[in-house]
Amino acid sequence: MKLVRYGEPGHEKPGLIHGGTLRDIGHIVPDLAGEHLGRESLGRIRAANPDDLPVVDGSPRIGPCVARPCNFIAVGLNFADHAAETGAPIPKEPILFNKAPNCIVGPNDTVMLPKASEKSDWEVELAIVIGARTSYVNEKEAMDHVAGFCVCNDVSERAFQTERGGQWMKGKGCATFGPLGPWLVTPDEIADVQALDMWLDVNGRRMQTGSTATMIFNVVQIVSYISHFMVLEPGDVITTGTPPGVGLGMKPPVFLKPGDVMALGIAGLGEQKQSVVGWTRG
Amino acid sequence: MKLVRYGEPGHEKPGLIHGGTLRDIGHIVPDLAGEHLGRESLGRIRAANPDDLPVVDGSPRIGPCVARPCNFIAVGLNFADHAAETGAPIPKEPILFNKAPNCIVGPNDTVMLPKASEKSDWEVELAIVIGARTSYVNEKEAMDHVAGFCVCNDVSERAFQTERGGQWMKGKGCATFGPLGPWLVTPDEIADVQALDMWLDVNGRRMQTGSTATMIFNVVQIVSYISHFMVLEPGDVITTGTPPGVGLGMKPPVFLKPGDVMALGIAGLGEQKQSVVGWTRG
Repeated sequence: MKLVRYGEPGHEKPGLIHGGTLRDIGHIVPDLAGEHLGRESLGRIRAANPDDLPVVDGSPRIGPCVARPCNFIAVGLNFADHAAETGAPIPKEPILFNKAPNCIVGPNDTVMLPKASEKSDWEVELAIVIGARTSYVNEKEAMDHVAGFCVCNDVSERAFQTERGGQWMKGKGCATFGPLGPWLVTPDEIADVQALDMWLDVNGRRMQTGSTATMIFNVVQIVSYISHFMVLEPGDVITTGTPPGVGLGMKPPVFLKPGDVMALGIAGLGEQKQSVVGWTRG
Repeated sequence: MKLVRYGEPGHEKPGLIHGGTLRDIGHIVPDLAGEHLGRESLGRIRAANPDDLPVVDGSPRIGPCVARPCNFIAVGLNFADHAAETGAPIPKEPILFNKAPNCIVGPNDTVMLPKASEKSDWEVELAIVIGARTSYVNEKEAMDHVAGFCVCNDVSERAFQTERGGQWMKGKGCATFGPLGPWLVTPDEIADVQALDMWLDVNGRRMQTGSTATMIFNVVQIVSYISHFMVLEPGDVITTGTPPGVGLGMKPPVFLKPGDVMALGIAGLGEQKQSVVGWTRG
């Protein structure tokens, strides 16, 4: 299934994409969030005949495909060639950091540069959406705890991330730094989640080209690993790292400026497109 | 006001401590969380005559004084003498890291050591609870965005935090690692939040003695600073660092083991007491 949330920010409704048409599933689940992403809820959506679901008129805004998670976790330097371009060694264990859950926006919403930002950067990533409480799960069982996958742009302010004392989260959770979606795609729709092409363009120029095949730690390793350090809840989001081609890795580095347009996608998971604007009061 | 949440885990109700008696305020606010910690809601609680509020019978469990925040942020090495005991330099800017919001427990709940934990440690801290959306606020206005203060035990697994590759969050968000409360104390009850005595005992032995007077970055500096990197939401929690006396700083280091009892408190904000247990499936 390809699940979506549509409507104005903060008022999104759950929907299903079927045969290219957006259909309403608000009578089956109130939202795509928390326990409503569990096996039982997804089973009820799956049991419905999609042709009987109400068609949504017009072309509403597509919101983030998951409503505000409890935890929004990211894996750093998870592609060997991306680690190399940033000058970092290959990690021996997954590097984890946090993105503020309230930085999540829709896949085509505007990305706003923080005030005084000079080094904002892009990162196309595969995100995992958790579907069950997950604590000390092993790799073999990890996929049973996954509700689905989506595209994430892990927008990052590099100066905030690495030049302001210590931990990376300062440059990862700025408002609008977490475009998510368009679709939450359930695992049964994906033949091999570790063989998905990834790409990102800035102003029409291809910047990132990669594949989930070159992740250092794969999806089940990541879910299992994190679950040994904290409890993952249904609706939690884990974004799994980016392939080469970020602005920081260019010679000289290139960063986002107002007026730029980012377009990105992952095979089978849909595409995003964001306009970049400068900081405005808010 | 001294606000509390009481009842069984996940089913807490909001209450007010008045003259040593717990009174129910569930008819005024549904919970102490999110927008219900805003100025308008707190004003309605304040407007009630406390003697008219229903007295709560018995001695219910006291839960965390804030229901699950969107962001649970911590400031690292924010006491000069604590930085020294860990061998770290004095930070030039606040060091920020994240605790998983779902690690929060009540002030007297059990703390469970993670599986394979050998270096779990204690940290008595002053926590700030945010009462309004906070983005790019200056220090002068920062206190207007604070709903209140509480005690936090920033329980930490030092090996997970610093020996497992990169960021600190791996050792900070384990299940039960965030005892919070007992009370959420509104700013009007506190003469000077930067002059509060702090203490922590393990098994009756005084380990930490300190004061919020020796914080490197004070409450208004912290709130203002964080608001330049992310948006803080009502109900968000910021724990502000610990004074000297953590187990990691002892020679040789001393860490928590099953059967230990931690007792801690901050002047005017109440006391916590947690029994430590080993890992059990869950």
